[in-house]
Amino acid sequence: MFRSERVVTRTARKLLQLPSSVEPPLCRRWKGIQKPFEDVIRANIGDCHATGQRPLTFIRQVIALCTYPDLMKSSDFPSDAKNRAQRILDGCGGKSIGAYSDSAGVRVIREDVARYISKRDGFPSDADNIFLSTGASDGIKSILKLAMTGESGNKRAGVMIPIPQYPLYTATIAEYNAYPIGYFLTESNNWALDMTELRRAITAARPNCQPRAIVVINPGNPTGQVLTKENIQDIIRFAKEENLLIMADEVYQHNVYAEGCAFHSFKKVLMEMGPEYSTMEMASFMSTSKGYMGECGFRGGYAEAINFDPDVKAMLVKSISAKLCSSVSGQAVMDVVVNPPQPGEPSYEVFKKEHDTVLGQLAEKAKMVTETFNSIPGITCNTVQGAMYAFPRIHLPKKAIDAAKVKGQAPDAFYCYNLLEETGICVVPGSGFGQVEGTYHFRTTILPPVEKLGEMLARFRDFHVRFMDKYS
Amino acid sequence: MFRSERVVTRTARKLLQLPSSVEPPLCRRWKGIQKPFEDVIRANIGDCHATGQRPLTFIRQVIALCTYPDLMKSSDFPSDAKNRAQRILDGCGGKSIGAYSDSAGVRVIREDVARYISKRDGFPSDADNIFLSTGASDGIKSILKLAMTGESGNKRAGVMIPIPQYPLYTATIAEYNAYPIGYFLTESNNWALDMTELRRAITAARPNCQPRAIVVINPGNPTGQVLTKENIQDIIRFAKEENLLIMADEVYQHNVYAEGCAFHSFKKVLMEMGPEYSTMEMASFMSTSKGYMGECGFRGGYAEAINFDPDVKAMLVKSISAKLCSSVSGQAVMDVVVNPPQPGEPSYEVFKKEHDTVLGQLAEKAKMVTETFNSIPGITCNTVQGAMYAFPRIHLPKKAIDAAKVKGQAPDAFYCYNLLEETGICVVPGSGFGQVEGTYHFRTTILPPVEKLGEMLARFRDFHVRFMDKYS
Repeated sequence: MFRSERVVTRTARKLLQLPSSVEPPLCRRWKGIQKPFEDVIRANIGDCHATGQRPLTFIRQVIALCTYPDLMKSSDFPSDAKNRAQRILDGCGGKSIGAYSDSAGVRVIREDVARYISKRDGFPSDADNIFLSTGASDGIKSILKLAMTGESGNKRAGVMIPIPQYPLYTATIAEYNAYPIGYFLTESNNWALDMTELRRAITAARPNCQPRAIVVINPGNPTGQVLTKENIQDIIRFAKEENLLIMADEVYQHNVYAEGCAFHSFKKVLMEMGPEYSTMEMASFMSTSKGYMGECGFRGGYAEAINFDPDVKAMLVKSISAKLCSSVSGQAVMDVVVNPPQPGEPSYEVFKKEHDTVLGQLAEKAKMVTETFNSIPGITCNTVQGAMYAFPRIHLPKKAIDAAKVKGQAPDAFYCYNLLEETGICVVPGSGFGQVEGTYHFRTTILPPVEKLGEMLARFRDFHVRFMDKYS
Repeated sequence: MFRSERVVTRTARKLLQLPSSVEPPLCRRWKGIQKPFEDVIRANIGDCHATGQRPLTFIRQVIALCTYPDLMKSSDFPSDAKNRAQRILDGCGGKSIGAYSDSAGVRVIREDVARYISKRDGFPSDADNIFLSTGASDGIKSILKLAMTGESGNKRAGVMIPIPQYPLYTATIAEYNAYPIGYFLTESNNWALDMTELRRAITAARPNCQPRAIVVINPGNPTGQVLTKENIQDIIRFAKEENLLIMADEVYQHNVYAEGCAFHSFKKVLMEMGPEYSTMEMASFMSTSKGYMGECGFRGGYAEAINFDPDVKAMLVKSISAKLCSSVSGQAVMDVVVNPPQPGEPSYEVFKKEHDTVLGQLAEKAKMVTETFNSIPGITCNTVQGAMYAFPRIHLPKKAIDAAKVKGQAPDAFYCYNLLEETGICVVPGSGFGQVEGTYHFRTTILPPVEKLGEMLARFRDFHVRFMDKYS
């Protein structure tokens, strides 16, 4: 079968979108070279729509109405979508989503976000603490920047980040010449955070930096774990002892699948821990790109800045103002996410059905991926409790590791490269996220449609068996 | 008349959106305090739709179709809008604008941008050099960051910026601890760039930095000038002598009004200057927020990176990849801007009419603003040749300057503050943009609708006369 250059280089480009130390082995031109597979399966990036998920009708109706208000006259659009759109437009300058919003976002949307958080946690949230952002990444960068700026004697600011981690963090820390304090997640305990390890990491880093913040990703990326309430309490206690800003990356808060698991927001846990803790500084991040909606391209997101000193918050406003504002259509998507159709509204049934279908399928795929990988000799995989990824460990034979060295590649990059070459399956080597020295992993999304995912896992199994045979 | 708190604080917030050293005198609460005007006229920010400009039908139709492709079946949408939308969707992952694009943007849109530039300049443009961005600001920041990074011995990187300037530049330079090399525009020569002044500025700065880049805003913000071809040639020669990256902020390229003026792109002039110059590094920036479209909220923009070293371009791609991508709906707006309806297409007549109306009214208002300010004693104003702003000089009496000092305000901030308090007209003090020591200015947009602008200028005149009387 003939493989055109185009798809593979596009895949390579996508891989390169990960702002990581991922090796770029796929960049070279494969012009006209035949490949032993029909198509490339892109399991390398959490891009829901690109892998076949359909946008939710209600979200798109509201955004289309905001974009082209002539549609308000159309009988094809339900009244609740029209009401949502009109409310957003009324909050925009000139009633147009083409006007700049305040730097922090359209006021009415920030109020809706605050209401959503209050309802979720049972603790009040203030619209003045909500900052709408260009995806969660932009909010994370803005707050991280703030934490890394300012005098710490002559020391660089230190930011604790999980290993494995989402590469945005290392990239941003590097950009601002801060110091990354990597703490290892415990693979043998389903990627939980271990307090001994946090203490080890901060103690080891202290001579080199002034620790300022701790990043926690829950549910986890790339690791797919969902933290227990007790684990979160421990982290909060640790952050208090060490006087760290907690940065809770909670973009997968809707993505919890495993039985017995539940999403506990850091804010809720903090507030429940009483007055000794409830005044701690914390930021939480959310996105329109994940959850059941998967609206990545709209670049909607928010940060909630909790208990920030007013001067710091003023500086935050100032620092984001050079960007003017985030995309107002992305803000509008976020509004629908935090203010979805309610029972009794005309769109409720369709919305609920679409919502439940997406999350139901994700749960099914999470199980399927975990079970399949664990059934393959030489691969072990923690339960995908949440988020959109599995991070299986590959137990590579010495001969494979040596072969990788000869090619100047990380062993897991070598493995993933061979996987892509032989099967068209594109996943990301664990070395792009960080891992315990001498262990090897890869990240795969669980996003392809069920049937496609089945095919992918079958191709994977075949490849893995061949690979292990070859290098045993 | 009763003035609610809300409007004024919102205005104050807008003012604060300028990432400048603008004094924030409007932040305090004015709860329930009566004001001697009906409404606030916001002439402080180039926010077209917020000041009443209507979105162009064709742009919004294409974006609505991209957002909610069910509308492809609707007979209310013209075929050319459907074709544009389908072409964009075909370029998106999963045919959804909810998918991430490549970090540099959707390929087909980058190709359309390159085609637009080629046609505009008569010199080829390569889609691989086009980077779609979150407004122009994001593209500017990405390239500026690149120019400011790397070793310059022990010296900070220097970036030449016009004074007065758009505050994004000083903010970004400060963020990366680079060194701003301000060069004064010549007010007496309609804000042209003077080579003697450029040499003075760079010579004075050299002990403190390693000059790396020169920023030129054409048409000018806040100054409204349109550079002549000869002036651009001089700047290019200067940049060559000094080995500077030229950063051409050309977001107002559609906004040229004065007779005898024309927009000359830096790239075209560079290419016309022959082989000695045509290999120079240059970046040019464009936005969906200005021109005739004024689609600020969609945050569309692009950068063209011309003659960049391949390694530098690779680093640019890497550095923007942490942001994933710019808003795909913003990218789609950019696509329409660079690929508008052509004669013979069903939407052409309406598009042309709306386009010409907006630009025709802006030209009328540019003239009206220039003439009115020049008719007021104590104000002089260069011709608003282009862009969306006037930057009149106010010749303040000594008593006013002293009164400002007593309040701890810059004299022009004091003036603008009084203007807002007494008339509801919100403009930005020149001190927020920089100006020759001892001169005082303000920036006003020319955006309010003609009638409103007339009312604003009448209120302004009355205020100014009273103010001058009071402090003479």
